[in-house]
Amino acid sequence: MAKALSVLNLPAHVAPRRNHSRPSLSYRPMMVTMAMSTPNKNKSYWTSVHEDIGAHLRQAVVVKEPVEVYEPMRHFVFAAPVNMAPALCVAACELVGGHREQAIVAAAALHVMHAASFIHENLPLSDRTSLIPKSKPTMYHAFKPNTELLVADAMLPFGLELLASSDNPAGNNSGRILRVMVEMTRAMGSQGVVEGQYNELQCSQCDDDDRKLNGITDVEMTYETYKKKEGRLHACGAACGAILGGGSEKEIELLRRYGFYVGMIQGIVSRRLGPTEEIEELKKLAFKLREVNSFNDENAEVIFSLVDDNITHVLGFNLG
Amino acid sequence: MAKALSVLNLPAHVAPRRNHSRPSLSYRPMMVTMAMSTPNKNKSYWTSVHEDIGAHLRQAVVVKEPVEVYEPMRHFVFAAPVNMAPALCVAACELVGGHREQAIVAAAALHVMHAASFIHENLPLSDRTSLIPKSKPTMYHAFKPNTELLVADAMLPFGLELLASSDNPAGNNSGRILRVMVEMTRAMGSQGVVEGQYNELQCSQCDDDDRKLNGITDVEMTYETYKKKEGRLHACGAACGAILGGGSEKEIELLRRYGFYVGMIQGIVSRRLGPTEEIEELKKLAFKLREVNSFNDENAEVIFSLVDDNITHVLGFNLG
Repeated sequence: MAKALSVLNLPAHVAPRRNHSRPSLSYRPMMVTMAMSTPNKNKSYWTSVHEDIGAHLRQAVVVKEPVEVYEPMRHFVFAAPVNMAPALCVAACELVGGHREQAIVAAAALHVMHAASFIHENLPLSDRTSLIPKSKPTMYHAFKPNTELLVADAMLPFGLELLASSDNPAGNNSGRILRVMVEMTRAMGSQGVVEGQYNELQCSQCDDDDRKLNGITDVEMTYETYKKKEGRLHACGAACGAILGGGSEKEIELLRRYGFYVGMIQGIVSRRLGPTEEIEELKKLAFKLREVNSFNDENAEVIFSLVDDNITHVLGFNLG
Repeated sequence: MAKALSVLNLPAHVAPRRNHSRPSLSYRPMMVTMAMSTPNKNKSYWTSVHEDIGAHLRQAVVVKEPVEVYEPMRHFVFAAPVNMAPALCVAACELVGGHREQAIVAAAALHVMHAASFIHENLPLSDRTSLIPKSKPTMYHAFKPNTELLVADAMLPFGLELLASSDNPAGNNSGRILRVMVEMTRAMGSQGVVEGQYNELQCSQCDDDDRKLNGITDVEMTYETYKKKEGRLHACGAACGAILGGGSEKEIELLRRYGFYVGMIQGIVSRRLGPTEEIEELKKLAFKLREVNSFNDENAEVIFSLVDDNITHVLGFNLG
């Protein structure tokens, strides 16, 4: 265990977990479209966040000309698995004192870009036949490879276009949007998701001799993948929300770290590996962050409880 | 001919071409790396622009960790065919009174994104065997499909990251950079290059019956492709340069139009279709723009001469 975590460059010592009185959250999956029109005071914070992201996406991703491109785009935006990076973006923004609408476009952009990378990750290629790990969620191929390739190529710039065009000169927030843009392009690119995807696919091809040669164990390689993909993406989501909400540098970095733990846990959970010792360790690290945070927002407990067991339920969300 | 151009939504009437005294330009292809260290007063304007773009790319795209991603990235950045969209970006910036360094990062970003889309356009897919038109420049596959897919996925955000991170808060130009970002993401995405690629690949699969059914002729379909790909990309390059250089809205739109004609011509030329009636028509339209422009810059003649016959030589440029 200590060895696995050392790959993460995480401190091995953790503070004892306090006995928190967390609000009772309903993380159960629900169809956002159905919930939209019936205000329900009991619906959980995360459900409302996903509803708002879904609503923004439905309005932003419409089927228009060229239909050949926008129809599959809309299909994939809503068919791709939902992760917590966009929701963390909204939550972090609110936590540092910002308003939800300051982060909702960035959250939607993150989901669109994540969906694009999910499509390409599942694209059938001649040298991929045996590469795609069996433990991962896979995709139903509703379109032919050429369409899937090109649609995802359109989705990445589309996500960034959403974000860039949300700039309101009167709002004096161009600097923040550009900073978020750098965060997102780095997280999606060669030092983030793409590197993770490359590692994951190569990893499944390695045999024990290759690994010995590279001086890296299976566990280490798997953790490298979680770090670069889910870890990096969720860290980015939380940091971007904090930036857009006007958080201090300290708050931005604390939330980035927290998002990283959430992403790592989600990475493990989404591969259906079940609860592991590593998850418990990551939770402890996250709880330690909760102790040092100075947020007075009433949602602080809700947000920092995300790493609790409920995260497994959160993964059942969809965007309508 | 009139029918072909009507697809472009261009005015069919053109002004007679004036007798211009253009400076004698040397557009001949040259190795930029060799020319870099030997200042040469005679080297042409476009050569110097390409040199500066190449120099910026060499400094921005270095091979670092993860080498598996950055090595092919650098390979493709310099292996991809050079087009005039990035150079037009620099030229338009200077033409409206801006400095070269205000546009050089955007120009480099445009080239990186163009290179990414070129890789994906040439990616072998199971439903593409007979799709790739034979008349187009093709790519030597230096890497396996999985690497080529993922590297291009990393390049698009990398290009935008370059641009976003060029923001200098002291320069008070965040608004301009964000506007350029919107221009570029639109040009690269579902209403630009991606749509053109989709059309082009589908087009090569259509038979006459399909075309009759869709009410579109071969010529019209080809022009739709040029419009969305080369036309849109070069229009974007010129407009972005004008925006970054602080041009007026009128100047931005004039240069966008001019870039569109340059791109259309380049689209035809790069498919080795030889000089055509359409090229002559596009040149006339471009010359008409030259007549209405009010630029006093000494480079105005150089820039507006790009649509002249020499454009075929310009295509021989590389970035070192």
